[in-house]
Amino acid sequence: MSSYRIGIDLGGTFIKGGIVDENNTILLQRQVPTKAEEGAYAVLDRMAELAKDLMIADEVKDMDCLGVGIGNPGTVDAVRGFVPYSNNIHWENVPVADYLSDKLELSVKVDNDANCAALGVLLSEKETAYESAILLTLGTGLGCGIILHGKIYGGEHAGGAEVGHMILKSGGRKCSCGKRGCFEAYCSTTGLIKDTKKEIEKAKQKTPLTKLYKKDGQLDGRRIMTAVSDQDPVAKKAFDKYLTHLAEGMTGIVDLFRPEVVYIGGGISARFDLMEAFLNDYVKKNSFGGEHAFIPVIKKAPGGNDVGIIGAAGLIGVE
Amino acid sequence: MSSYRIGIDLGGTFIKGGIVDENNTILLQRQVPTKAEEGAYAVLDRMAELAKDLMIADEVKDMDCLGVGIGNPGTVDAVRGFVPYSNNIHWENVPVADYLSDKLELSVKVDNDANCAALGVLLSEKETAYESAILLTLGTGLGCGIILHGKIYGGEHAGGAEVGHMILKSGGRKCSCGKRGCFEAYCSTTGLIKDTKKEIEKAKQKTPLTKLYKKDGQLDGRRIMTAVSDQDPVAKKAFDKYLTHLAEGMTGIVDLFRPEVVYIGGGISARFDLMEAFLNDYVKKNSFGGEHAFIPVIKKAPGGNDVGIIGAAGLIGVE
Repeated sequence: MSSYRIGIDLGGTFIKGGIVDENNTILLQRQVPTKAEEGAYAVLDRMAELAKDLMIADEVKDMDCLGVGIGNPGTVDAVRGFVPYSNNIHWENVPVADYLSDKLELSVKVDNDANCAALGVLLSEKETAYESAILLTLGTGLGCGIILHGKIYGGEHAGGAEVGHMILKSGGRKCSCGKRGCFEAYCSTTGLIKDTKKEIEKAKQKTPLTKLYKKDGQLDGRRIMTAVSDQDPVAKKAFDKYLTHLAEGMTGIVDLFRPEVVYIGGGISARFDLMEAFLNDYVKKNSFGGEHAFIPVIKKAPGGNDVGIIGAAGLIGVE
Repeated sequence: MSSYRIGIDLGGTFIKGGIVDENNTILLQRQVPTKAEEGAYAVLDRMAELAKDLMIADEVKDMDCLGVGIGNPGTVDAVRGFVPYSNNIHWENVPVADYLSDKLELSVKVDNDANCAALGVLLSEKETAYESAILLTLGTGLGCGIILHGKIYGGEHAGGAEVGHMILKSGGRKCSCGKRGCFEAYCSTTGLIKDTKKEIEKAKQKTPLTKLYKKDGQLDGRRIMTAVSDQDPVAKKAFDKYLTHLAEGMTGIVDLFRPEVVYIGGGISARFDLMEAFLNDYVKKNSFGGEHAFIPVIKKAPGGNDVGIIGAAGLIGVE
C-alpha cells in the first residue's frame, strides 16, 4: 500500500494543509482561517479537523497516513513537540504534538515554520541533491531555515537557527524587537521600504517612483522592485543599500555553516534576477578565506507557498 | 598497555607539542620556534621532530601512541587533513596529514587551531559534561571554535565556523581583512585598544589612563583592563562600548547554535570578572525568544595555552 503524510503550515491568517506523497508532491491542498484570537486549543482543533478532512479525501483512498508534520511560527521545541512561545499567534507553552496525536491517533511532529520551509525547498528541488542549505525568507520579517545533512538544524536547544535579530549595524535602525541594528530591520521587505522612503525624502530630483509616491503615498516591495527594474535612480540607490546589507548578513551566516546553497525566498525574491549576480559575487569575494574556502551558490528559492507544506510533511520520514 | 596522543598547537611563533593521556592531562610539554619563513615543509619537518622527541620521553615508556593531532592556523580541510590556506604562516595547499603520517607512521589529524582550542576547553572542564560550546578567543584577532555534540563543528565545507569577519557594524571601522565593520575589528584586543585611543582623544579631563598614555604612548589590553578595574572613567567608557559590541556579536551566534555554554578566552578574559555579569545579563535579555528559549551560560575559558594542545590531541579518539 502506498503512503502519504499530511503537512500543515500554520500561519497568522491561514492554516494551510496538504497531502504529500512519497515523492514530495502535494496531491491535495486545503486551507482554513487560523482565528488565533480564539486561543491555542481552538486553533489546534481546527488543525485536527483540517487533517481529518484531508484524510477522508478520495485522493488517499487505500493509502496509509504515516503522520502529520506541522510548521509552527515562533520558538519551537522540536524534540518535545512543544511550542514555548509564539508572538505571532500569542501562544505560550502549547503541547502541540501531544494534543494533536491524541486527537488524530497519528504520529505528529512540529518544527519552526521557517525551518519547515527550508526543508520544503530542498525536498522540492528534485533535480539537485543538496545536503546542506540556508533559506533566507525576505518578507515582513526575515525568516531563516537551516538544513544540514539533509535535516533541519534548529540549534542545540530551543531558540536556535534564528538570524533575524543578529546585529548587522550596531547602534543602527530600531527593530520591531526593541533592539537596534538587527539584520531583519535592514533586510526584510519592511527594511527595503524604509530605505526607499529615506531615499525619496533625500532625492533632489523627481523620478517616476518619487512622483508615484507623492501621488498616493503608497510604497510596497512590488512597486519598489518594479522601479528598480525600470532603472529608477532613487529606487536603485535604496535597493543597492538593501542588497549590500543582505549580502553582508548572508555572508556572515555562510562563514559559519558553509552550506552548498543559500536560497533567497519571500516576496522580494520574485525579482531575484536583480540580486543574483551581486550576491554571488559578494559571497565569493567576501566570505572568509575567499576562493581558498568553499563558496556556496546563491539561488532563488523555488516553490512558493507550497514549500511550507512539503517541508512540514518532511518532518515525518517516508520509510 | 595504557595509551597517549600527541597534540601539537602550531602558532605563528612557536610550535607547542604535548603528550596527552587518556584523561586529557598533559604529561609532558615542549616547544620549538616555528620559523615560518623557512617554508611549509621545513615547519612540518620541525613538527615531526618535536613529535619524535616526545615519543622517546621517559614519560611514555611502555605506552602506546594512538596518533598525532594538530591545531593549524588558517582554513583547514579537516576531512582531507589538508590546509588550503593560512595567511598567518603563508601556507597554500599543504597536505599536512599525509606528509606527517608518512614521516611518523602514525595516524595524523588536523583541524583549525581555534576549533582545537574549543575542544580543548571542553575536554579540560572535567567536572562539567557540556556537549555543546562556543569559544570566543579575544586576542590580536577574534577566534572562534564551535563544539556540537562533543565534536568540533567546522561547517559543512572548508571555511566554516568563522565568526571574526561577520559584519557587526555595516559601514563601520575598517578591518585588517579589508572589509568594514567586522566583529573582529571591534572585539579583538586590537579593537579594544582602538576604542580606548578614541576615548582618550575625546576625553575632556585627565584620568590616570590618559596621563599614562600621554607619558609613554603605550596602550595594551593589560593596561586598559587594569584601568577599567580601577574605575578609570575613560577606560570604562571604552570598555563599555567594547563589551556591548562583544555581547551583540556573541548573542547573534547564540541565536544560531544555542549551545549550553559560551566560553570567553584570550588575553582580555583574564579580567572576565569585569565582563561576566554584563554578558550573562545581555544574552538573557537579548537572545531571540528571551526566557522562552534556552539561555546559555557565559563563562571564562579555562586552561590557558594548554587547551590548544589538549584539543589537538582530542582530534585522535581515545578508544
